[in-house]
Order: sequence, then C-alpha cells, then structure tokens
Amino acid sequence: MSSPFAVRFHDVPVLPRGFRCASRNCGLKPTAKDLAIFVSDVEADAAAVFTRNQFPGAPVILGRDTMRSGRLRAIVANSKVSNVATGPRGIEDARRMAAAAAAELGTSPDRVLVSSTGVIGIRLPIDLIERGLRGMAGELTPDPLVGAEGIMTTDTHPKALSASVGEATITWVAKGSGMIEPNMATMLAYIFTDAAIDAPTLDRMLRAAVHLSFNMLSVDSDTSTSDTCAILANGIAGTVDFNAFSDVLAAGSIRMAEMLARDGEGAQHLIRATVRDAASEADARRVAKSLVNSPLVKTMVHGADPNVGRLLMAVGKCADCTIRADATDAWINGHAVVRRGQRVEFDDDEVRATLRAEIVTLEVSLGVGTESATAFGCDLTQAYIDENAAYYSS
Amino acid sequence: MSSPFAVRFHDVPVLPRGFRCASRNCGLKPTAKDLAIFVSDVEADAAAVFTRNQFPGAPVILGRDTMRSGRLRAIVANSKVSNVATGPRGIEDARRMAAAAAAELGTSPDRVLVSSTGVIGIRLPIDLIERGLRGMAGELTPDPLVGAEGIMTTDTHPKALSASVGEATITWVAKGSGMIEPNMATMLAYIFTDAAIDAPTLDRMLRAAVHLSFNMLSVDSDTSTSDTCAILANGIAGTVDFNAFSDVLAAGSIRMAEMLARDGEGAQHLIRATVRDAASEADARRVAKSLVNSPLVKTMVHGADPNVGRLLMAVGKCADCTIRADATDAWINGHAVVRRGQRVEFDDDEVRATLRAEIVTLEVSLGVGTESATAFGCDLTQAYIDENAAYYSS
Repeated sequence: MSSPFAVRFHDVPVLPRGFRCASRNCGLKPTAKDLAIFVSDVEADAAAVFTRNQFPGAPVILGRDTMRSGRLRAIVANSKVSNVATGPRGIEDARRMAAAAAAELGTSPDRVLVSSTGVIGIRLPIDLIERGLRGMAGELTPDPLVGAEGIMTTDTHPKALSASVGEATITWVAKGSGMIEPNMATMLAYIFTDAAIDAPTLDRMLRAAVHLSFNMLSVDSDTSTSDTCAILANGIAGTVDFNAFSDVLAAGSIRMAEMLARDGEGAQHLIRATVRDAASEADARRVAKSLVNSPLVKTMVHGADPNVGRLLMAVGKCADCTIRADATDAWINGHAVVRRGQRVEFDDDEVRATLRAEIVTLEVSLGVGTESATAFGCDLTQAYIDENAAYYSS
Repeated sequence: MSSPFAVRFHDVPVLPRGFRCASRNCGLKPTAKDLAIFVSDVEADAAAVFTRNQFPGAPVILGRDTMRSGRLRAIVANSKVSNVATGPRGIEDARRMAAAAAAELGTSPDRVLVSSTGVIGIRLPIDLIERGLRGMAGELTPDPLVGAEGIMTTDTHPKALSASVGEATITWVAKGSGMIEPNMATMLAYIFTDAAIDAPTLDRMLRAAVHLSFNMLSVDSDTSTSDTCAILANGIAGTVDFNAFSDVLAAGSIRMAEMLARDGEGAQHLIRATVRDAASEADARRVAKSLVNSPLVKTMVHGADPNVGRLLMAVGKCADCTIRADATDAWINGHAVVRRGQRVEFDDDEVRATLRAEIVTLEVSLGVGTESATAFGCDLTQAYIDENAAYYSS
C-alpha cells in the first residue's frame, strides 16, 4: 500500500521563505520547552479547521473568530495547560496571549492564532506566558523542529515535514499522541507555505486534505477539545499549480497523520487500514475507522497474531453499513486471510512474522461497490495504560 | 446511584422449577469445562435476541430460525470454538450439535437453541461435542453455576443470579468478558423462569430488559459475532403479574450486565455512567456509552485520578448530540466536579480516595431536557493488553 500521492519529502524539513519560529521554556513545565511562535514576515492568507468536540477550549473559541478575516501573521502556542473548561476568564487569557505575541512581533492581536494544549480545567498561567514571550522575536529560526518542540506534550519527538510544489515549499508542523480521534483536525497541526493562494482556496484545499488525513487518524478514539489545523500562505514564492499544490498538501497531511499515529501514546506499530469496494465513501471510512479503533485489533497487532476473527468482528460490527459476509475479502500485510467471508488457509508463521514490522497494513474488500478509504492508527500497549493511568490531572 | 428497580436477589442462585443443567469437558479445552446443556422438563415458551454484527456465527444464523416457533426444550452451548466464519459447513455442524443434544434429551432438534463461543474461523470439533453430549442427561442438576461453568472463556468466575416474582423464579446465567459491546444482546445470557408467559410477551419483555441492561454494557467497544440472549418460560409456577415480572427481569438483567462489566477482561472496577436531563433518550444513551468507552476515562478510573477534562472530552465528542457547555454539570462518586461546563473546586484527595472503590459512579446532567440512561463498563488495565496481545488465534 503506497500513498495515492507519490511525493518526495525533503531530507531535512525547513520553513518556507518568509516564515520563522522560536520556542522557549516559560515555566509551565519544569525545564522542557512549553511555548512556541511561528511568524510570517508578511501577512499571509490563512484557513483553519477546529475540533467538533462540544467543549472547545478558549483558544478554539477565539480562533474561530480570528480566522474570519482569512489573514494571519503568526501563531502562538503553549503546551502543558490547554485552557479548556475555564469559562470567560479563559477567553480573556487567550486574548491576552494573542496581544502579548502581537506586541512582541509588531502586529495586531487579530492577526495571531492562539493554541493551548495540555491539562484541561486549570487556569492558564498567563503571566508566565506574557513574560516568556518577551524577546522571542530575537530568536527566530527557519528550523520548524524548534517550533515543534514547544508544542509537545506526550510526543516522543518533535514532528515536521517539508515538500516542494514548483518554486514553493509546504511545511507541516504538528504534535499529538493521545486523546486523538480528530473530528475536523488533529490536536495541533500547522502548515506553512510561501505559495500565493487566497484564503477561500486555502480553506477548500485544507478541508480536502484533512478529510483524507487527520480526520482518518485515531490513536485512541478520544476527540480532543483543542484540535486545530491551520494553514498560512505568505505568497513570497508566487503562484503555483493549484492541482499540484492540493495533491502535495494531501500527501503531506497523510504522511503527518501517519507520523502522529506511529508516535501514538505507547505505540510500537503504525496501522494502515484500507477498505475498498464499499457501497459508499462513508461506509469505507466507517469500516476503516472501526478497524483501527478496535481494542482487539490493536492488541492483535501488538501481539503479532493474525487474528482473522477480530478483523471480521470489527468489520461486521458496523451494523449500519452495507456488508455482505459472502462478498468480503481481507488481507494482512498483503497475505490473503479471508475470502468470501471465510478464513482461508495461510502460512500462519509467515503472516505472524510480517506483523512484527513497524508498519502493519490491513486491507478489506467489501465487494459491494467502488468506494474506498484508508484510516491510520496504532497498536494498544501496556505503555498507553501506564501513561494514562499515571497521568495526574491536577 | 441505586438501581431503578429495588429487587432482592437470592443468596444462592437456583434454576426455577422444571429446569436443570449439566456441564462437562469434552476435549475442546485441555481440562476445563467446555460444554453445557440447560433443559426444561416440559416445552417452554421462549424468546431471544442476537448480535447485530454482520458476520454472525453459524449458531446465531441457525438460532434465528429455531426461535421462529417461540418454543424451546433446551439450550446446548460450547466454549473455546465459536463456529464463526465457517461457511455452510459451520451451519451443518451447528445442526449436528442441536441433533445430538435433542437425541440425548429426547426432544426434536428444532426445540434446541445452540450457542458456541470462543475462537473465530476454526471448524467446530463436532465429533468431540457429539461424544461429549452422550450421557449428560444423567448428570442434570438445578445448580445454574454448573451450567455457567461450561460456557466460560476468559471469565474469572461462573455467573448466575436468581430472584422471585410471586410464586415464580427468574434465573440468569451468563458469560462474557471481552469483545463486549453487545448490540441486541450480550455474549451469552440465558434467562429461565417457571412463570407462565407466552412467547410474544416474553419477546417484548426481553427486548425492554435488554435495552436497559446488556445493550448498555461495554467492556471494550467490540461487538461479538456470537451474542445471544434467550429467555425460557416453562409455566410450572403458573401466571404472574406481568408488570412485576417485567421489572424484575430488567433489574436482574442490569445486575447481570454489571457482573459482566465488573468481570471484563483485566477489569478492577465497575463503571456506572448515568446521563440525565438529556434532550432525547438516544442522546443520553450515546453520551453514557461514550463515557464508558473512552480509553482515557477508563484509564483515569484505573489510575484513580478525578480527571474532569477527560469527562468533558468524552461528553463533548458526541458531536451530534444536543450539548450546551454552559448547561453541563458532572459528579464523580457523588462529588460535584463540573458546574455549568467549568471545573469546580473540590477536595481532590477525597474524590481520589473514592475512586479506589470497586464501583465508580460517573453522573452527567446535560441540562437540556428530561431523558436519562445508564451505561455499564469497566476500567482499562495492563491485564486487558496482556490477555489480548498474548491471545493466540490459531
């Protein structure tokens, strides 16, 4: 299973021309980075999608408002405290964060998108953030991994990715490893480009890319209250072919979704589940998500056991999808394991051996139509339990 | 939170008059019991609900047919091999199992309900079962725990429960600890009564009870391909008050659902999640299920951490439900933790201490209507991962 879009990513990610970033520890965490800014030298066209969770954080509420203009100069984000379930005072804190970043960067607060990620229900230490922002404009660098460091929570490494479209560059920066089944976007994903693209077009292309990537990602079926995915286009590289740009945008977003899945809390494997020949795209997406969300499929991958019964269970439990048992075929890492709804004989040891690879591919053909979808997930391990049972919320 | 139905269950469960059972090891497992029969001395009115998984096992396919008459003399069930994804040969094996039980008990095969539970995709060792059934009619006992032993898979103990309604008795026998988010019924749950109730009435009462109990149960969000819940009424105790019977049937089914949740794979806690003041019953059920299915809520209970953010996340991710952040209140074990969508100050150590109790109660008031629902689940522990990653499917 290769990506539908064959894109060559840069060996070393770099921010597109006119974008720079910085990160610092401002005292929210003991010593690790907890504050980041991403800045465009000139005002950029912009679009964003946010969580559909009905308890959105203050930065999401403010961000929806900020994005109305379709114009951004900067993003400011902190980790450790998410500023969710904090009421009107939380909104005020998010506004102060935008204002402090704007003052430091010489722009207006309504050109700054704010994100916060971390513990829910605790007031944002806004004084620490305001103090931390002072002087950050003097530390800006084109290395996106520096900014990525400032937004990490339980991520094991900072995540950034770059690709070219004609003369332009697209760079993705993201974080996220738990509470991840995004519904409109992933935890925090920022995309920067020096291509010239107007905000409405960016919005359309972003939604199409998110549909195929972050919205098909699930680490643990839990939808964060802070999910934000934003794209900024500062136009410095001039115009590009929109179709080519849209393809690369989707491909890079899929690659980033896979990086997030692979670094899911406790994960040792990336699971790619592709469902083909479905009656509708909605069915294909639903069944693919059911596969990557099933605890029994996730533990089966963790245990490297080609458990055909669990695959059929996870498909069949989609009670409202068009599924015909006698039309269903399935493959594990390319090995046929189900034919017309029945387990076929296969070399158990051989398939078991392939399940030890870092990437595990599950394919299901429903045999009732022509639609398809791919979902991205990870295995479920003791480390996920350790991490989340030991998590201290206050 | 007490059950809506205050019912006194018997200290020691016993099958109602005219019902007996037996169990044996027939060689499917090394030494443990793997075969059970439940028999009524006289033909009983009967009703059943089955899994909505679209890959139902052969016994479920055959069972839907058997139940058309609304009459049963016996149930025969084996554990270890589920006879699912086995094609036409699986149906034939299920028929042979019914015939062998019928011959042993002196009835006809169409009066015998068959169940199989265990590994999927492997042919049922029908010869061992046929041999194992011979002579079982001579070992029948009124102790329901004997029959319950024969249907255990990863359960840590056999499960049975009895209660009285007037002169009649109702007895529940069930198994199930993983692959459990039933959709119409739980893994295997059999209910026996000596009350006289016709099959259509039984069917109606069974569906009402299952709606409140087994269909609100989730151990791991995975829906088995073998779920079966059947009720047999042999009439020996004569007529009863239908309303009283219906109430006790629901109460006992809820209690049994709680026993199954508490014995979920690896579980250390029973989670009862009640959602009140919802706009619709469907919303209340959806949000209650979201709470018990959230891996982050489950690990929070396991870690005894009163994580308010995870509760709000699990409520808010029900994107299609009517939820108003500023109308939502929540309680953990009776302690108010959220008021109008914001975390309230509470004694963290005190709430943390209550979370160490075996039963954890989560309550949410959505504040937008009058409907309510309760879901039953369990915590997520390292033992669930151990059990399911080590599971060998072939």
